[in-house]
Amino acid sequence: MNHFSRRQFLAKAGAGAAFASLVSPHALADPFQSTKKLGVALVGLGYYAEFKLATALQETKNCKLVGIVTGTPAKAEKWKKQFNIADKNSYNYQTFDRIIDNKDIDVVYVVLPNALHHEFVLRAAKAGKHVICEKPMAVSVKECEEMIAACKAAKVSLSIGYRLHFEPYNLEAARVGQQKVFGQVKIVETSMGFKIGDPGQWRLKKALAGGGAMYDVGVYALQAARYSTGEEPSFVTAQEIKTDPVKFKEVDETVMWQMEFPSGIVSSSITSYASNIERLFLSAEDGWLELRPAYGYGPLSGRTSKGELNLPQINHQAAQLDGIAASILEGKESIVPGEEGLKDARVMAAIYKSIETGKKVKV
Amino acid sequence: MNHFSRRQFLAKAGAGAAFASLVSPHALADPFQSTKKLGVALVGLGYYAEFKLATALQETKNCKLVGIVTGTPAKAEKWKKQFNIADKNSYNYQTFDRIIDNKDIDVVYVVLPNALHHEFVLRAAKAGKHVICEKPMAVSVKECEEMIAACKAAKVSLSIGYRLHFEPYNLEAARVGQQKVFGQVKIVETSMGFKIGDPGQWRLKKALAGGGAMYDVGVYALQAARYSTGEEPSFVTAQEIKTDPVKFKEVDETVMWQMEFPSGIVSSSITSYASNIERLFLSAEDGWLELRPAYGYGPLSGRTSKGELNLPQINHQAAQLDGIAASILEGKESIVPGEEGLKDARVMAAIYKSIETGKKVKV
Repeated sequence: MNHFSRRQFLAKAGAGAAFASLVSPHALADPFQSTKKLGVALVGLGYYAEFKLATALQETKNCKLVGIVTGTPAKAEKWKKQFNIADKNSYNYQTFDRIIDNKDIDVVYVVLPNALHHEFVLRAAKAGKHVICEKPMAVSVKECEEMIAACKAAKVSLSIGYRLHFEPYNLEAARVGQQKVFGQVKIVETSMGFKIGDPGQWRLKKALAGGGAMYDVGVYALQAARYSTGEEPSFVTAQEIKTDPVKFKEVDETVMWQMEFPSGIVSSSITSYASNIERLFLSAEDGWLELRPAYGYGPLSGRTSKGELNLPQINHQAAQLDGIAASILEGKESIVPGEEGLKDARVMAAIYKSIETGKKVKV
Repeated sequence: MNHFSRRQFLAKAGAGAAFASLVSPHALADPFQSTKKLGVALVGLGYYAEFKLATALQETKNCKLVGIVTGTPAKAEKWKKQFNIADKNSYNYQTFDRIIDNKDIDVVYVVLPNALHHEFVLRAAKAGKHVICEKPMAVSVKECEEMIAACKAAKVSLSIGYRLHFEPYNLEAARVGQQKVFGQVKIVETSMGFKIGDPGQWRLKKALAGGGAMYDVGVYALQAARYSTGEEPSFVTAQEIKTDPVKFKEVDETVMWQMEFPSGIVSSSITSYASNIERLFLSAEDGWLELRPAYGYGPLSGRTSKGELNLPQINHQAAQLDGIAASILEGKESIVPGEEGLKDARVMAAIYKSIETGKKVKV
């Protein structure tokens, strides 16, 4: 194992400024007591919360599931039994703000539809809780900026649910690209998409999702182009193609975008709700790296011009939760801070602007 | 073996109208005598002619190397010895037109730099010889149209050196895509590029090459998107990125382009002289196909959502030469007619126009 460390990843990816203190005075008596497990409350108990996060929280070392926030009483009952949640740690969206007085809960993880992230991150910060916000961070640059400001003002940590910053194959891609293992990267291809099912789901409603494939899974392909190069794009061009205007009346179906990076790297990316596609490819001066599948929950697979990669297949969500919890416990900056989500939001805004204007847009 | 037959490929790819007769009255006494090997003369004795075509012509069944056309006397001497070429079948660019009187030579294969294709195809047609023209067909749509018209007027066959129309992996991609083996194709990714060496070579001079990576190897990625879908693009957008304005002063270094097809298929492609990249990927409703490497001289490699492809690794040039010679001998239309090159030229003109205008261009 010689892949990129979290710290290196962070250093190259360029996270925001350090917090004065990441430790909430409300929640944590002794932040440096390494045996403490942070208490996590999940806000929004959909599929991802139930089958990925709650299960991951059964195996995390630095945090554990202690609270829930849901608008559905039946779900609350089910979860309380299934995950041994105390009555006093179960909230609904009206009672949520009382969480300020709950010493069991150190971290609030917002897993609601995208358009609700902003509100609940602000409310969590106001309650003095550290926050994890599922990706995409929010539905506008302005929302992201306000979320960062609110968490800074409340002196709580804000992390985005970017699990691949903790995943060995993607860390290896970042190492290969950023450390020029095969020389300077010249061309990057990333793509992420899936054939979406149920036409009634919230992902297809602009008011809840904010955008379509681009926001939901395109952000993976965008992230990958950024962390595998260690650079921020200077310019983007983008195209949207809609083949089913009924199903995709409100949100984008397929988006293609191209980026130019300061060193001369170019990238080409696709995201789609029309078909399955998932890949990260780097072509460098003296070799290449490919992950495929690259971003799913695993197992992932990758290879380079030197042969197959054989890296550990881990529980992404557990690694992400433990990594974020460790940063909080150690009073260090998050590996996936709000600033990282804001950067993606800015690029996505440029992508949508390019689609709208048909022009190349400076990020 | 269950891959697409040449005839099916042709039918779907939509070649141009049939010739009244493809058989040159000058060259071929009995065109339907299947034991006859057509005599081929290579025009331009560069690397590709020497190390790919001349060697392939030693193993072809339907044609053989009998003539050469070169401006370099030393090359002529070397080739005459090495390939047993008769003195009377060796021409230079001034004496070339006398080939009209040479009954040994049925087919002229133009392997000169791109900008010379037009002139020599016209001269070959005027000499009553069937013509194979290396890709890219020419440096403008107008040139392509004139070449097709000249060959029609002379009643000779015109084929483009598209070897992958005869190659099992690419034929399989065409079959999978066109016959909807995994359902309707939704997304296509194609890319072809290499890190170019010698800055003094003709490929970097606009007057000889006509264009850069796009003309030279981008045409593979364009072809692949066309034959793997069986459709012609309706719209293109394109971007050019130049990171080395000295080396690539005259021609394009990296071009990315996106196409929309009538059925709703979208494609994203890259070509580059900056880095090695080579792939064909189809994402269909119920599965996928990938060739990588896809377009090199082999061995090629491919896989689908059902597993690895295990197809014959063949000599592409020999298959192409025999396939074209067979069409001539049988009086049938070429599988890779001039019209096929013209279609690519039209799309490439649209790509360059999109780069120039920054707008989406109708093909």
